[in-house]
Amino acid sequence: MPSKDTTAALDETSLRTYGFSDPLPDASLIADLVVANHILFDQGVVDAFGHISVRHDKRPDRFFLARNMAPGQVTAADVLEFTLDGDAVNLNGRRAYLERFIHGELFRARPDVRSIVHSHSPSILPLAISKTTRLRAVCHMAGFIGQQAPLFEIREHAGEATDILISDAKLGRALAQCCGDNNIVLMRGHGSTVVADSIPVAVYRAIYAEMNARYQCEALRLGEVEYLTEAESQACVRNIEAQWHRPWALWKEQATARRQS
Amino acid sequence: MPSKDTTAALDETSLRTYGFSDPLPDASLIADLVVANHILFDQGVVDAFGHISVRHDKRPDRFFLARNMAPGQVTAADVLEFTLDGDAVNLNGRRAYLERFIHGELFRARPDVRSIVHSHSPSILPLAISKTTRLRAVCHMAGFIGQQAPLFEIREHAGEATDILISDAKLGRALAQCCGDNNIVLMRGHGSTVVADSIPVAVYRAIYAEMNARYQCEALRLGEVEYLTEAESQACVRNIEAQWHRPWALWKEQATARRQS
Amino acid sequence: MPSKDTTAALDETSLRTYGFSDPLPDASLIADLVVANHILFDQGVVDAFGHISVRHDKRPDRFFLARNMAPGQVTAADVLEFTLDGDAVNLNGRRAYLERFIHGELFRARPDVRSIVHSHSPSILPLAISKTTRLRAVCHMAGFIGQQAPLFEIREHAGEATDILISDAKLGRALAQCCGDNNIVLMRGHGSTVVADSIPVAVYRAIYAEMNARYQCEALRLGEVEYLTEAESQACVRNIEAQWHRPWALWKEQATARRQS
Amino acid sequence: MPSKDTTAALDETSLRTYGFSDPLPDASLIADLVVANHILFDQGVVDAFGHISVRHDKRPDRFFLARNMAPGQVTAADVLEFTLDGDAVNLNGRRAYLERFIHGELFRARPDVRSIVHSHSPSILPLAISKTTRLRAVCHMAGFIGQQAPLFEIREHAGEATDILISDAKLGRALAQCCGDNNIVLMRGHGSTVVADSIPVAVYRAIYAEMNARYQCEALRLGEVEYLTEAESQACVRNIEAQWHRPWALWKEQATARRQS
Repeated sequence: MPSKDTTAALDETSLRTYGFSDPLPDASLIADLVVANHILFDQGVVDAFGHISVRHDKRPDRFFLARNMAPGQVTAADVLEFTLDGDAVNLNGRRAYLERFIHGELFRARPDVRSIVHSHSPSILPLAISKTTRLRAVCHMAGFIGQQAPLFEIREHAGEATDILISDAKLGRALAQCCGDNNIVLMRGHGSTVVADSIPVAVYRAIYAEMNARYQCEALRLGEVEYLTEAESQACVRNIEAQWHRPWALWKEQATARRQS
Repeated sequence: MPSKDTTAALDETSLRTYGFSDPLPDASLIADLVVANHILFDQGVVDAFGHISVRHDKRPDRFFLARNMAPGQVTAADVLEFTLDGDAVNLNGRRAYLERFIHGELFRARPDVRSIVHSHSPSILPLAISKTTRLRAVCHMAGFIGQQAPLFEIREHAGEATDILISDAKLGRALAQCCGDNNIVLMRGHGSTVVADSIPVAVYRAIYAEMNARYQCEALRLGEVEYLTEAESQACVRNIEAQWHRPWALWKEQATARRQS
Repeated sequence: MPSKDTTAALDETSLRTYGFSDPLPDASLIADLVVANHILFDQGVVDAFGHISVRHDKRPDRFFLARNMAPGQVTAADVLEFTLDGDAVNLNGRRAYLERFIHGELFRARPDVRSIVHSHSPSILPLAISKTTRLRAVCHMAGFIGQQAPLFEIREHAGEATDILISDAKLGRALAQCCGDNNIVLMRGHGSTVVADSIPVAVYRAIYAEMNARYQCEALRLGEVEYLTEAESQACVRNIEAQWHRPWALWKEQATARRQS
Repeated sequence: MPSKDTTAALDETSLRTYGFSDPLPDASLIADLVVANHILFDQGVVDAFGHISVRHDKRPDRFFLARNMAPGQVTAADVLEFTLDGDAVNLNGRRAYLERFIHGELFRARPDVRSIVHSHSPSILPLAISKTTRLRAVCHMAGFIGQQAPLFEIREHAGEATDILISDAKLGRALAQCCGDNNIVLMRGHGSTVVADSIPVAVYRAIYAEMNARYQCEALRLGEVEYLTEAESQACVRNIEAQWHRPWALWKEQATARRQS
């Protein structure tokens, strides 16, 4: 049912056709970005909204992000190349995401980050509107969440009458500052953004942040919860995220198969 | 598995065959109404019950609504043309929905409204029976809900022995009055009705009202919730609903593909 | 993926082949029973466990029920004919459900009943183990539940060391007595049984009892709930269950399509 | 979409090709292990993580377990043969699961056990982090859980800075000791492990432990719960688990069909 998979045939010629500038990115980076869009949709992290970016592998001051469209329908031809200021070099009349500044400013503030997922995923949302409860790591798959995920309150930066969107560089910088060294930042009334050093790990974190949120909330509704310690969180990131090939291979096979049938 | 898609071939000749009166509606309006029925079913807003209508594009005193059947199975041949009083001009022995008065009276009371969805969607239902909690906008996708969705109590209008249905024009008017200028009205023991100025936005609102209800209730079960301010709600409606093409393109592609396989 | 649909070709010859006794039932009764098994599985009311029966249309002292197998895999060849005592006339070495006495004794006690669904459906189960909360009608689709569904406690009849199953006629009679004139009876630590005057309405009730349970519990976790009045329940049964053709047509189309692909 | 089914063609020649040692296991044991991997994925017990093992039918000091990969993608060629110490005899450069010691040490401690499922299944997880609530049998399908499932706290054995994984034999022995004679042991911040005397019953228990956890938690959020008595639990294990052919036939048919389309 979804768009056909177009990543297999991706080569230098097609990258030029799509308007990317020199030095061209590795074709596999763009292919992974397209598949990641599909995986995030298939796994319920994004619906028609939400996006994933990847930093240019040859130029750290550039990043790639789909044009303004539903992630589940993205093909390589829909990928735009952006400066960190959020200007697309191959826009050609197409529309960019209003919130591209999330990506540009986080890439600027965090040289260690190579991929970013912004979403309104359903189990995170309640924690993005709760006055009482903060997202915190409860299970070994989600050690990257750490002791307490920061919550970005846009009202502190732009008042009580915004559309909640991170729609300019100033708000992007405020979000990046709130995120700090964390791997995830929640956004009040909105959703969350996760960062990682590769596309597969960013996808992994977006998916397991969802699960951790669900488990944490369901357990809290029964009573007190045992959280991971800081040292447990760090050990889990080191040892369990090193297994990222396993879920990535599964999700990729599913996403590809779903678009071939 | 669902009924084949029949909207592609829709033209003036087929509209005449289906018994619509002059001036004929634009074929794309009927095509969108059929697809919207499928989308609402695919997205879990309606099951075998619930319905969506659209106001006639040439005659504001007429509207279109499927005959009495499950939305997921509707084809263009199943669409009826109604007066605002709820009389179908092309009934031809077919049965109309008992609750067509929801649509007729809301179209009469709200000249700004062009499409209406009535449903028993699962996350709204608990808020349609709760004595303690009212639906309210908690996230930017659902600013249209505003500060508090009204709840229609049929007992105030027809006593404590009804079948809960809006089965005549008098109850339709009472519901429209309760709805007032809001974009959604909940119905006690029953479900909800959302209004919008187009089919895609009505579908959008029905789907995101569901999500807002789920997030709000899940967060409330943890403690206090931070709601959108009135100004935030309005800004979200202005800026985010303008993005309706994105989810509509996705939902339409999915609904069409599901009916071609 | 599921078993192929075999109901289309069902005729007198095949009914004889399957070992049914004279007078033969109407072929459509057996076809509907097979489809109902598939619908209950597809809609999540039963998994590998649970069953649906129908009273013989020519002999009120006989009923039909699948052999001991998963409902989603039942074909017409798997249907057994039973006396009200739970003896199968066409067993031929096959195994019967351990709990066929649920059906036999309810058919005996309730001449008005023509179809029975026993299930462990997931939203009913919490109410079958709760010491504090009883299932009660909260929405117009589920008026048949009435003011309070009875809960059968097997310990009152067979002590605290049973396997919870209704595995003999004595327990079947106790369950039927507990059910009384109600349309649904919950079973502690086990599930529920619904009765109706036809297969489509029994299926309808099993599905909407699930939904009512979910809505009731989710709303109760927020605070007090507004229930249907007794008069509302009765009006809903009269007017809304008369619409059974609509969901039945949808569920049947889905179940059939799923087994043809 | 998933990997093609490869179990049909499994014979002695292929078993030798896969590197199993003499005496070779029965081909059907390996075929069942492969199908069980698929079933656990299809039923939502495992995602890309989690694993199922079976004891060698000819050598009780050996067991079979897939190589380090997602269970839903396992084929017979991916099955490794292990000693109870967790050494694979046919590794050939492939990677083993970090937590193979769960299986080795439970097989050593429990001669009655022939199959083991380790998972992070979603309804069990909240009970693996709750400080207030312990998993306990509430329904007849899950009598095997008994009066209270033990919870393994890795901190008692390896301190507060581990990665939570059972990554060596010492931790495996501690887990086995905590499990004792129980059929399930929960693991704090991690998931659970179930044991049984056959693959189908281990799969059954993993699936119904999930359901029991969900029902128990949902009911507890309403108030007090009625649990099974010890005698009821035992009677349920005796009489209901004897019906394992029924769900196994269904799950297997579904898993096989899903991989043939």
